[in-house]
Amino acid sequence: MSGMPTAFTHRLAVRFRDCDMLGHVNNAVYFTYLEQARLAWWRHLGSGTGFPGANTVIVHASFDYRAPAFLNDELDIRVTLAGIGRTSVTLTYEVVNAATGQTLGEARTVNVTVDGSGTKTIPVPDHTRALLNGAGNPA
Amino acid sequence: MSGMPTAFTHRLAVRFRDCDMLGHVNNAVYFTYLEQARLAWWRHLGSGTGFPGANTVIVHASFDYRAPAFLNDELDIRVTLAGIGRTSVTLTYEVVNAATGQTLGEARTVNVTVDGSGTKTIPVPDHTRALLNGAGNPA
Amino acid sequence: MSGMPTAFTHRLAVRFRDCDMLGHVNNAVYFTYLEQARLAWWRHLGSGTGFPGANTVIVHASFDYRAPAFLNDELDIRVTLAGIGRTSVTLTYEVVNAATGQTLGEARTVNVTVDGSGTKTIPVPDHTRALLNGAGNPA
Amino acid sequence: MSGMPTAFTHRLAVRFRDCDMLGHVNNAVYFTYLEQARLAWWRHLGSGTGFPGANTVIVHASFDYRAPAFLNDELDIRVTLAGIGRTSVTLTYEVVNAATGQTLGEARTVNVTVDGSGTKTIPVPDHTRALLNGAGNPA
Repeated sequence: MSGMPTAFTHRLAVRFRDCDMLGHVNNAVYFTYLEQARLAWWRHLGSGTGFPGANTVIVHASFDYRAPAFLNDELDIRVTLAGIGRTSVTLTYEVVNAATGQTLGEARTVNVTVDGSGTKTIPVPDHTRALLNGAGNPA
Repeated sequence: MSGMPTAFTHRLAVRFRDCDMLGHVNNAVYFTYLEQARLAWWRHLGSGTGFPGANTVIVHASFDYRAPAFLNDELDIRVTLAGIGRTSVTLTYEVVNAATGQTLGEARTVNVTVDGSGTKTIPVPDHTRALLNGAGNPA
Repeated sequence: MSGMPTAFTHRLAVRFRDCDMLGHVNNAVYFTYLEQARLAWWRHLGSGTGFPGANTVIVHASFDYRAPAFLNDELDIRVTLAGIGRTSVTLTYEVVNAATGQTLGEARTVNVTVDGSGTKTIPVPDHTRALLNGAGNPA
Repeated sequence: MSGMPTAFTHRLAVRFRDCDMLGHVNNAVYFTYLEQARLAWWRHLGSGTGFPGANTVIVHASFDYRAPAFLNDELDIRVTLAGIGRTSVTLTYEVVNAATGQTLGEARTVNVTVDGSGTKTIPVPDHTRALLNGAGNPA
């Protein structure tokens, strides 16, 4: 998906509740999977339950569905740091069936950094840039 | 279900996301329906998004499933005030298919009133008792 | 968002379960709202619970978040037919706070038409094109 | 909770999406956790994604909430076979914080066995009784 290295990989299992009447994971649930991977990465960076060193708000999320995931599948959500702008951080994701290695989807999110009120965009702090550019887990 | 009058009826529509691989509403989702009805009743009593006149914590929830609900069904969630104890409020519910009148399930929840910390049980305030015993919507 | 007319508007209410620890509707839940609007439109076109006149699979979904939605907000999900390709149907959406008229987000989905096996892409049937190009509800 | 041995323990992690505006796991989500544990046990017994050796429908679920679970908590869902009746199987559950050993809640579900149509109750097959009474995982 990208020439950049995967920053972090989060593994999770598909729950029965994640699936819909069509018998596979519902399209909206993949955004929950992205969220889990993003938060796991940030927690790995020492930021507790939030974004490292700043408040943040999601402004964009997109997903390209390639193949379905099914009940009990184990999925690897691979997060890549695609870019840090003046006030935003762009991540790309690859969702992979952990057993077969098949890519099930590719995704992208954009977060902006905001002040304490959560409404005013602020520049990405240097501390946050340094953390995000640092090492993730071994892919 | 009870000789007591229904305090409040909340109508909602079954979403696609509420259904599971078996083609009907998932068993856990009914507790979300109860929550919606409970909150709608409390909001009707003028309490904003919370319990009228006190903080509260749920300590028990149970559901007896009689018949399935399906995509796009409109459901009436009928809430009855079953009893107010020293520190708890017990509600019973009937989930009814609005089109057919069929009872799909019966339920019960118990909430206790707590102090601002959310951890210490306190007596149900008189103001709350008066509100809950007051009139709901016309059934 | 587009020069094209809104094909269909679906109104829904934000549930407590739709909100997350940040106190507003979770980013993934908007895709459930899009799904509800899409299915309501197709049902309006006489197609029962599926796509009118063909099987379909979602291959892309994206959302641009402008402003948060909160518990009990009523939202209008406005669906526009952005285009019908040889094997795909592109819809755009605007999510609007029904009380204030504020746009909370804009979205886009792409569905492809597939054969009965659900795995082989087929051309969009003429019958489906005619239905989708027909009138929706009054905006 | 019971003098009977735990048949099966399923470990899972709390997702961000499982939590609500109050900052902890939503009351309805615990029923999804019970479902995951139940299905994991049945899968362990060799039954694929369903009940071992028969179709089944849930007719009762209840939960007694003792203490909250929070984002990223690892939980052990301990399933005990409480009893097998002529046409029903009763399970009890204990939800435990895996790190602290604290019991967060206790639960109970009743499933009835049904014929292929899913609507007519049938006796629990001998094969199913034998499987359920057999060994689970080491607690």
